[in-house]
Amino acid sequence: MIQCGDMLEDAKQIITCSIQDMLPDRAVAQALHKVTLQGNIYVVSFGKAGWQMASAASAILGDRIKKGVIVTKYGHSKGKLSCFSIVEAGHPVPDDNSVRGADMTVSLLREAKKGDTVILLVSGGGSSLLEKPEEGLSLENIQEVTKKLLQCGAAIQEINVIRKRLSAVKGGKLAGLCRESKIYQIVLSDIIDDNMEMIASGPACADTSTYGDVCRIKDKYGLEFTEKVEKALKKETPAVIENVDSMITGSVRELCRSAARHAQKLGYTPHIIATDLNCQAREAGSFMASIARGIGKTERDGWKRPCAIIAGGETIVNLTGHGMGGRNQELALSAAAGIQGMRDTLIFSVGSDGTDGPTDAAGGIVDGTTIDRLKELGINWEKVLRDNDSYHALKQIGGLIMTGATGTNVNDVSVILCK
Amino acid sequence: MIQCGDMLEDAKQIITCSIQDMLPDRAVAQALHKVTLQGNIYVVSFGKAGWQMASAASAILGDRIKKGVIVTKYGHSKGKLSCFSIVEAGHPVPDDNSVRGADMTVSLLREAKKGDTVILLVSGGGSSLLEKPEEGLSLENIQEVTKKLLQCGAAIQEINVIRKRLSAVKGGKLAGLCRESKIYQIVLSDIIDDNMEMIASGPACADTSTYGDVCRIKDKYGLEFTEKVEKALKKETPAVIENVDSMITGSVRELCRSAARHAQKLGYTPHIIATDLNCQAREAGSFMASIARGIGKTERDGWKRPCAIIAGGETIVNLTGHGMGGRNQELALSAAAGIQGMRDTLIFSVGSDGTDGPTDAAGGIVDGTTIDRLKELGINWEKVLRDNDSYHALKQIGGLIMTGATGTNVNDVSVILCK
Repeated sequence: MIQCGDMLEDAKQIITCSIQDMLPDRAVAQALHKVTLQGNIYVVSFGKAGWQMASAASAILGDRIKKGVIVTKYGHSKGKLSCFSIVEAGHPVPDDNSVRGADMTVSLLREAKKGDTVILLVSGGGSSLLEKPEEGLSLENIQEVTKKLLQCGAAIQEINVIRKRLSAVKGGKLAGLCRESKIYQIVLSDIIDDNMEMIASGPACADTSTYGDVCRIKDKYGLEFTEKVEKALKKETPAVIENVDSMITGSVRELCRSAARHAQKLGYTPHIIATDLNCQAREAGSFMASIARGIGKTERDGWKRPCAIIAGGETIVNLTGHGMGGRNQELALSAAAGIQGMRDTLIFSVGSDGTDGPTDAAGGIVDGTTIDRLKELGINWEKVLRDNDSYHALKQIGGLIMTGATGTNVNDVSVILCK
Repeated sequence: MIQCGDMLEDAKQIITCSIQDMLPDRAVAQALHKVTLQGNIYVVSFGKAGWQMASAASAILGDRIKKGVIVTKYGHSKGKLSCFSIVEAGHPVPDDNSVRGADMTVSLLREAKKGDTVILLVSGGGSSLLEKPEEGLSLENIQEVTKKLLQCGAAIQEINVIRKRLSAVKGGKLAGLCRESKIYQIVLSDIIDDNMEMIASGPACADTSTYGDVCRIKDKYGLEFTEKVEKALKKETPAVIENVDSMITGSVRELCRSAARHAQKLGYTPHIIATDLNCQAREAGSFMASIARGIGKTERDGWKRPCAIIAGGETIVNLTGHGMGGRNQELALSAAAGIQGMRDTLIFSVGSDGTDGPTDAAGGIVDGTTIDRLKELGINWEKVLRDNDSYHALKQIGGLIMTGATGTNVNDVSVILCK
């Protein structure tokens, strides 16, 4: 475990409280109060916060809901909800249940007639969780393309430009299924610039990306696809959608502010330095460690202890190995190397959804003793990073942050705590 | 050129003045006043600031100098100095003149007898500029190894651990040539943690690195060397040296502080966030751009305009292409992509020695229009970064910082200016 016990407690409290602040319940309630309910009410809630958002809607609308569907990640459902069918599906790679969830959603939306109301509750992760391939494509085609995109280190924005063209439910196509009903879309944002088309690949948003963007991305990462995939990529997505009102809620900036508030309560002067990191996870870790090393050193113009330096966003991982980890764990482990031997300094990075990459951890937490403790176990941190195996390394020394599925998803926050 | 003209002027002033503050003249004078001069006085000055430091010593010691040698980079000598021989040599890869410089240095040091005084003026770059292969090795062997190390992205500290073992003048071996004389070493630091053994590969410093460190570095980057090189790597360097007094001066932290001071004079509130960056240049650029995007946005806890966010250190470049550039230019170009379209925001990164990588530029300077101006010329910044060709791209749009050889070398500073 982390050696500075009281700082570990502080970190845990900041993590727990700031994620708690990001639960979508209140935001969904506020948004629903602005909705004009008419006809039959259908609710579709999908994404990593799918259950939590549906639960909030259910608490307000109760039996007025004619029928609902929740599609969320495995382990993210917290039990039955009256009127709702629940499907748990694959993330970050869609699986058969993603298609099952999409099929149920499509049937439900086809029930909605003129004068009815459809409430779409959308959260991050939806891109993978709700999936139905475009005509001529199989789920395997989409899976292959998604894997390629993740492995080459493409940004989530770029992945989505490609992915929505391969899907029958993304890029505005879902909304196209019930053009006669009024659709209210309540979106919990996990995209750093709150670009709604990007969240869950914008199932009810007009798509501003074009085939030209597709070509640029292919060129950038040297990607090649099969003929069938190429054909789907060339087909343009809906550029105009008129029956949808959208409300956006949650953001990684709010998550950072919340972390700042809770750090301040614990006596750390907070400084938010960025809310939209998008560089490589391990390099961000190195940069954060450099910042940590300078705290208290530059007298006049620098930060003073105790303080909390906060950066939000979504870093990326270039897969070079076959280990297990996530961007937050990788950032933390890399930062650990940079603060080796430092006292009263702790760095953590955590995904607000509670699941970092394909692991059961939400992120990683390290201090000046982390690297030495790994060394004692015969673990070489540099090799671990090359193998993208931060999960197993951090697990052995109590460096994982375990929250379980949190019910929200507003991206990641990385924090340096200094006493 | 940069569109915000007055900010460009501000940037130029910060660059010029902070580099001026780092000239070693005063520091050399102060250090020399602490020296007890006796017997014949020999001066050896090598590194990128070699001429400037020798000139400062010459101004104080004048004809008391029996003989001196300067070994500096091509174009870094500013003219003849009485008593001194001057050799200009290769950097970052040593060449025949590096060996010539080393031979002259070795002869001079062998002249020094018991009771004489040797003044070593050491600055960064010396590793490459002063070179004499260990017995059994050729300069080509050293060049090959150096190139391999630079290309795999090894940190300068790691490069030096290897390099000093291949050399007859590094890792304390130079001081070993005149064990009877008193040696005063005045060091201008370009190493971020001021570890004197690392500066110019510590020619007069006992070497704490061991063959174990060599193996770790080889393993980290998957390096393999020839048998001859392996043999030299296994030979341990001097672990104790007793006739040397060392004084260290200059640091990248002072460079950052100076940049902060000059930014403040121009009305920007300065914040030094780090003084020892060591992550990848392009990722540091991306991180800096994220910081820039957040300025003025996070109300309570963030930075307000006008401000100057300052980070010092030495980032690294993983060579993937065959273009031309340097770490500062690459950082700046990458940052440009992250601030595309932003107003009143400028980012520059500059090496205090005036030569960034193998180019005649000191660094790069960009703003929110940089990427669009490149696009107008048909230049794709992503491709440029992949090709490590930032120099040619920035050159076309007036994005290079040109200072010429500055006479100092205390590493790099990167600055975000926001109005």
